Amino acid sequence: MTVRTDPAALAALLEAIRHTLPAVRILADAGDRESYRLDETAYLEAGLPGAVAFPMSTGDVSALLMLASKHRVPVVPRGAGTGLSGGAAGIEGALTVVMTRMDRILEIDRANLCVVTQPGIINADLKAAVAAEGLFYAPDPASYESCSIGGNLGTNAGGLCCVKYGQTRDAVLGLEVVLADGTVLRTGGRNVKDVAGYSLTHLFVGSQGTLGIITEATLRLRPAPGPRATLLVFFDSLEAAGDAVARMTSDGLVPVTLELMDRETIRAVEDWHHLGLDVGAAAMLMVESDALGAGASAELDRAETASLAAGGRSMVRAADVQEADWLRQARRLALRALERQGTVRMEDVGVPRARVPELLRAIERSTAAHGVRCATFGHAGDGNLHPNLIFDRDDPDASALTHVVRDEIFRAALDLGGTVTAEHGIGAARRDWLPIQVGDPAVAVMRSIKDALDPLGILNPGRVLQLPSVAIDPVSRLERAGAGP
Amino acid sequence: MTVRTDPAALAALLEAIRHTLPAVRILADAGDRESYRLDETAYLEAGLPGAVAFPMSTGDVSALLMLASKHRVPVVPRGAGTGLSGGAAGIEGALTVVMTRMDRILEIDRANLCVVTQPGIINADLKAAVAAEGLFYAPDPASYESCSIGGNLGTNAGGLCCVKYGQTRDAVLGLEVVLADGTVLRTGGRNVKDVAGYSLTHLFVGSQGTLGIITEATLRLRPAPGPRATLLVFFDSLEAAGDAVARMTSDGLVPVTLELMDRETIRAVEDWHHLGLDVGAAAMLMVESDALGAGASAELDRAETASLAAGGRSMVRAADVQEADWLRQARRLALRALERQGTVRMEDVGVPRARVPELLRAIERSTAAHGVRCATFGHAGDGNLHPNLIFDRDDPDASALTHVVRDEIFRAALDLGGTVTAEHGIGAARRDWLPIQVGDPAVAVMRSIKDALDPLGILNPGRVLQLPSVAIDPVSRLERAGAGP
Repeated sequence: MTVRTDPAALAALLEAIRHTLPAVRILADAGDRESYRLDETAYLEAGLPGAVAFPMSTGDVSALLMLASKHRVPVVPRGAGTGLSGGAAGIEGALTVVMTRMDRILEIDRANLCVVTQPGIINADLKAAVAAEGLFYAPDPASYESCSIGGNLGTNAGGLCCVKYGQTRDAVLGLEVVLADGTVLRTGGRNVKDVAGYSLTHLFVGSQGTLGIITEATLRLRPAPGPRATLLVFFDSLEAAGDAVARMTSDGLVPVTLELMDRETIRAVEDWHHLGLDVGAAAMLMVESDALGAGASAELDRAETASLAAGGRSMVRAADVQEADWLRQARRLALRALERQGTVRMEDVGVPRARVPELLRAIERSTAAHGVRCATFGHAGDGNLHPNLIFDRDDPDASALTHVVRDEIFRAALDLGGTVTAEHGIGAARRDWLPIQVGDPAVAVMRSIKDALDPLGILNPGRVLQLPSVAIDPVSRLERAGAGP
Repeated sequence: MTVRTDPAALAALLEAIRHTLPAVRILADAGDRESYRLDETAYLEAGLPGAVAFPMSTGDVSALLMLASKHRVPVVPRGAGTGLSGGAAGIEGALTVVMTRMDRILEIDRANLCVVTQPGIINADLKAAVAAEGLFYAPDPASYESCSIGGNLGTNAGGLCCVKYGQTRDAVLGLEVVLADGTVLRTGGRNVKDVAGYSLTHLFVGSQGTLGIITEATLRLRPAPGPRATLLVFFDSLEAAGDAVARMTSDGLVPVTLELMDRETIRAVEDWHHLGLDVGAAAMLMVESDALGAGASAELDRAETASLAAGGRSMVRAADVQEADWLRQARRLALRALERQGTVRMEDVGVPRARVPELLRAIERSTAAHGVRCATFGHAGDGNLHPNLIFDRDDPDASALTHVVRDEIFRAALDLGGTVTAEHGIGAARRDWLPIQVGDPAVAVMRSIKDALDPLGILNPGRVLQLPSVAIDPVSRLERAGAGP
């Protein structure tokens, strides 16, 4: 999507920002702005921001949005730019607001097991800061060493330990949010239970900057878990791996990680790093426990029993923490191992967890039929798979072909009762599938909420929801709405 | 609150319902309707419904709301009527829609650990049905033997095991909802992870029938836990009990129950049932574990250690399941034991969990200053306390006095960073405190969402949010909005 805005409106906005907020850094040079065109969704086309602003306080964000509303300039909120749905990609001529300078932890509240933080902090830095106090922040997207908490909140990011600890939304107790008109709102607080009014906290999380900009979050912590114990199990078929997952689930086992890799992924990792993976296997499960004391070993014993009953062909179990770190690389290196083989388009489908083997078969069928290479890994314990379509960027037909395959995989996921995005978000990349998945009445309700909270439509227009009319740019839409300056 | 509606509009609505939905039972007789005036919030004044309808299908609910919209008659959605906020209490002359006939379980999906159910089923019946399949539905409000799942969803009900398993919202994967105009909407599904669009599921849960009527829910199940092991610990002071809770929390202990009773509650229960409680104690904690196998005993060992370190004066630990059932009565009988002593006004405040002792002291100060009897119990592990103000209904000043004390307790909870309602809901009883707690900007956002989803304002008007103007009735408001028939 390329939305155009009015250059005169942008110029007037920048003039007003420089006057009102002289300390806020603004990038206006085209070369500088180019770095904010894309997020990590490299296969998407995106617009060049008209300017990039770096607020340092809630007051800055409030003033920026008040001015953007006044001048009717669309705003793209952005964290570290690691998103996989184009949610923070540029809009041609719009103002991108980058939150990375608001990166301070405001308070670690040990007694109430929570942390109050600004959104710009990197996930791994937050984890490290609370770990120094003997505490644990659970959500761990694969990009945790480079993604920001604000981006995690925007997408309701998942990760490897969701199966035990839930997604980002499950870790949020309260927010400070700036609305499109600059109003500052607080939701929730430090209470683990609170039913006063509608759950605005849950609504803002996952709205990808289309309803407001999050400027502060109160996040739930846990006492530090035990060190990770790691088990890899290899299977002769995808169905056997799926059967092992089902047996663990029905046994009540809740490991902290329950990841699956298919044959292509196993081989790509092993070719690159020689970890000793079983390259004859059709699938691998990585099971980890962070239970305290002897609990970890007991959990992996149960995982082994379930895996053997499902026909596991070989296993590797880490003898100690160092060996666990070594084995864990198998999963962590997966994406980079695939990227050595071509351009990777990573998708993010989910299904009710018992249907994972069916989804894997559907992915195989579609990619084989179109002659597209694909390697799949993902969060088997949650029913969330990442098929990675690998193509040659220099092949002029390849991109269109991966799009066809993507649509077939989306259709297969929905036919299995699934979702086109389990943790990456609709963003710009999957907008066309939202009504197909949730239905027109649900989209109409989402649209009415968007219009209620952002009546001028300046917040990340065209993300999550389509623009009101495909052919229109947001500025002329705003003008048609007849809003005064 | 007593809102009046137009009798002619109601008569026309009933005529249309009888014509369109001849099989839907309607109560029109004043004596019959009287049973639907109140929920369990007995101290509130409430209106007499103009009629009561009992739909049997989603189609019935859709047609009822379409007709109610056409005739501009307010609708009060109601489950089993056990609410403690007046959320399902009658509105004078309005249509109460009772969901108890839609009480079928549609599917128990073992492989995906979920159940699809209609909302009218009683919580305990749902628990029993899934337990017969070796599965567990966690949310357990104290009224679980009589409350309905639909009511639980409406209030995001809590209960005793929230500390381990979360509230009702945490157990919801998907919903079918009928909007004010009769549109049928589906949200979510059977996926544990799904970030497609805004989280409407989370928004509808806890909205107390003001945004739509839930007609079906897909709820998360777990494999059956172990039998409950139960420990009672008695303390010389409220602070010591609070310290024990803090020690358990920081030790990473997550018992399935972590309940507190104060001196007044201990004595009321012991006077009535002679369980052998330590009536010399200032506070009691009930700690339960449902860990599998030897895990339960190990958890209670850790709870004992924490309690002794905090100065626990005596303990009783159940030797077996029968003794655990016996001890568990201490908490289950608490409310009825207090009701033997007078009319009980139960409140529902919450604070960040480390501040429970401060809140208990504030409750003591306020009730002592006004000479109001109070007994407090609640969910210490969540920071959620239920102060029960006990008064003589025949004393003409007593009700007003309890209201003054309530306001002081609310103020104390908010001063501690807490909430005026942790699990019972704003409903009609606590509307005046919503803006004080969440602030005018948050209320304005809630109002804009309400107006977007229910533009005529027919769904449970005046609950959660105030009516747009206090002096106005919803019918004339609707007329002013100029909506055509």
